[in-house]
Amino acid sequence: MADYAIFELGDVVLQSRQTIRGAQLAYKTYGTLNAAKDNVIVYPTWYSGQHYENEWLIGPGKALDPEQYFIIVPNMFGNGLSSSPSNTPAPFNGPRFPKVTAYDNVMQQHRLVTEKFGIERIKLVTGWSMGALQTFHWGALFPDMVERILPFQGSAKCSRHNFVFLEGVKAALQADAAFADGFYTAPPQRGLRAAARVYAGWGLSQTFYRSEGDLRRLGYASLEDFLVGFWEGWLLAKDANNLLAMLWTWQNGDISNNPLYGGDYAKALGAIKAKAIVMPASTDLYFPPEDSAIEVSHMPNAELRIVETDWGHFAGGPGTSPDDIAVLDAALKELLAA
Amino acid sequence: MADYAIFELGDVVLQSRQTIRGAQLAYKTYGTLNAAKDNVIVYPTWYSGQHYENEWLIGPGKALDPEQYFIIVPNMFGNGLSSSPSNTPAPFNGPRFPKVTAYDNVMQQHRLVTEKFGIERIKLVTGWSMGALQTFHWGALFPDMVERILPFQGSAKCSRHNFVFLEGVKAALQADAAFADGFYTAPPQRGLRAAARVYAGWGLSQTFYRSEGDLRRLGYASLEDFLVGFWEGWLLAKDANNLLAMLWTWQNGDISNNPLYGGDYAKALGAIKAKAIVMPASTDLYFPPEDSAIEVSHMPNAELRIVETDWGHFAGGPGTSPDDIAVLDAALKELLAA
Repeated sequence: MADYAIFELGDVVLQSRQTIRGAQLAYKTYGTLNAAKDNVIVYPTWYSGQHYENEWLIGPGKALDPEQYFIIVPNMFGNGLSSSPSNTPAPFNGPRFPKVTAYDNVMQQHRLVTEKFGIERIKLVTGWSMGALQTFHWGALFPDMVERILPFQGSAKCSRHNFVFLEGVKAALQADAAFADGFYTAPPQRGLRAAARVYAGWGLSQTFYRSEGDLRRLGYASLEDFLVGFWEGWLLAKDANNLLAMLWTWQNGDISNNPLYGGDYAKALGAIKAKAIVMPASTDLYFPPEDSAIEVSHMPNAELRIVETDWGHFAGGPGTSPDDIAVLDAALKELLAA
Repeated sequence: MADYAIFELGDVVLQSRQTIRGAQLAYKTYGTLNAAKDNVIVYPTWYSGQHYENEWLIGPGKALDPEQYFIIVPNMFGNGLSSSPSNTPAPFNGPRFPKVTAYDNVMQQHRLVTEKFGIERIKLVTGWSMGALQTFHWGALFPDMVERILPFQGSAKCSRHNFVFLEGVKAALQADAAFADGFYTAPPQRGLRAAARVYAGWGLSQTFYRSEGDLRRLGYASLEDFLVGFWEGWLLAKDANNLLAMLWTWQNGDISNNPLYGGDYAKALGAIKAKAIVMPASTDLYFPPEDSAIEVSHMPNAELRIVETDWGHFAGGPGTSPDDIAVLDAALKELLAA
C-alpha cells in the first residue's frame, strides 16, 4: 500500500508549451496542520529522490518535528511518483514526456498547498540540491507567502559548470545503444552504470576520497565496492527516462526564467522577502560556495553560511554525514525560531 | 615526413610481466647537446598528447630555450607514436596491448637518454599532468642524475578521487556498443564524444565556466560550441584503445610501486634529491593543491608553489592560458638558474 497521496492537477500546460494531461502530484505529509494553518513546512525532493528519501531530516526532536509542524513533501515531476516518463500513458510516456521546469513544479506545488489545504502562509521552505532549486523558486514566486527559506547545497539557477557536469552524466547514459533513444524495453544497464561512475567523482570531494575511513563506515571494503554498491546501485534502481527528465529540469533551472522576472536574475533573487540562510558545502564540486555568495549578494534578507566539510555535495545529503546534518539541523532550528 | 625519431628498444618486459616486442620510443629533440653534455632537459608528454603538443613551452627566449638547452621530448607509450595499441602488430595490438606503468615509461626513457646520447646528468625534468607523473618518477628513480624537477598540475601517485574521475571517462567510452570491447573497426564515435563531455567538467574550473569571456577568446560562441569543438574534437582525433591504455597508466601511476621503493610512498618522495618546484593550480579539480602539499611534505628539497588561476587543470596546459604560462615559464627560468 502506497505511503503517499495523490493530488489530481488536471491538464497542466507547462512553460515548454507541452501539456501533462491528467497530471498527478504525489506528496506525503508529516504531522498535523493546526487550526491557524501557520505551522507549515514545504520540503521538495532532490534529483532522483522520492519523498521517503527526504525523511532523514524529519523526526521528533529534529527541526522538522512532525509533533510541531505540518511538513509537506511534494515529489518532483519525473521522479517516478508524480507524473513522470515511467508512469504517464502513451503517447506522452518515456522519451516523449513533456519538458518540465522548476517553475512548473513549484506552481503546481503551490496549488497543492492552497487548493488542497487552504494554506496562506508557509513558515519554511527547505530542500537539498534540486530541492534547494525549488526552495529558491518558492521564495521568489511567492514572496508574501514564504516566511523563511533554507536552501542547502543547491542553487537558484544551474551554473554553466554544473550544466557541463550534467552533460557528462547524460552522454554516458545515452552512449549505451540499449538506451535506444529512450525506447528501451529493458533498463540500459551499461549506460546507467556508466552515468553512476561519472557521478561518483562529482558527488563527494577529493578529500573524502583521499581518506578511506568514511567508506568503511558506510560499509564498503574498497573503492570498487563503493562504486558498484553505492553509485551503480543508486542509478540501477531508477528509470533512465525519468533520470533524463529530471536532468533537463536541473539544467534548465533558472529562478528568473518566468513571467514574473523575465530573465532578470538579480531581480528574482532580490524579490525574495523570506529570511534566508543559504548553506553551501565548502567542498561541493557542483554547487561551490562562490555561486551561493553571488546569490546571497542579491538577496535582501539572506545569510551565507558555508558548511565546512569533506563530504562535498553530500554534506547535508541523504543521511550519510551525521556531523554535517547536525549543523544543518541546528541552522533549521535557529531559522524557525527567528 | 615524420618530425620525430625512433629509438629501438628491442623486447621490453614490463612491470605487468607482459612484453612489448620490438618496442619503439618516439622522441623529438630541440636544440643541440653541448660537448659537456650538461645542457639537457627532459620533458615527457601528457595524457593523449604527442611531442608537438608539448611545444608551447619551447622556444627562443623561453625557459626551455633550444638555443641554450638540449630538450628531449619522449612520447609516452600508448600515445600513438611510441609503441601503442594503434601501431603494434597483432596479436598485441588494440585491446591486447600490454599494460604499461609510468615506471616502465621512465625506465625506457632513461635508456634513450643514456644509450642513445650518453648523457649522465639532466639539468631539469618537467612536465604537465601525466608528464608531471613521469617527472616525479625521474626524480625518484634517478636521484643522482636529475638536478631539478618542475612537475606542474600533476601528481606522483594517482589519488583515489582522480582514479574515480577516470572511471567515469572510461565507463562513458566503453558504454558505446560500437567500442566492442576494443575490437572496433571504426572509431566508437558516440563513446569518444561521451568521454569528452565527461572530461569537459573536470578539465576547467567552475570559475572558468562561470565567466564567458575566455570561451569567446578561444573562438567558441557558446558552451555547446565549446563542448563539440574543443572537447569532442580532442577525443575524436584519438584512438580509443590508445586512450584506454594511457588511462590505465594514469590510474596505476605510483612513484613507489617499483623495486626501489616497494610501495613506500614517503620513501620514494624522500629519495628525490633534485631541487624541485611543485606547481599545482589553485582550481585544478583532479590534482588539487592539497595533494601536492602532501607530496612536498615528503620531499627534502622541494617548494610548493600554487598557481592562482581560474583555468583549473589547464593553467600550465597546452597553450590556452598565457598568463599562467608566463608564471610557469618564470618559475622554470628561476629553477634553471638556481
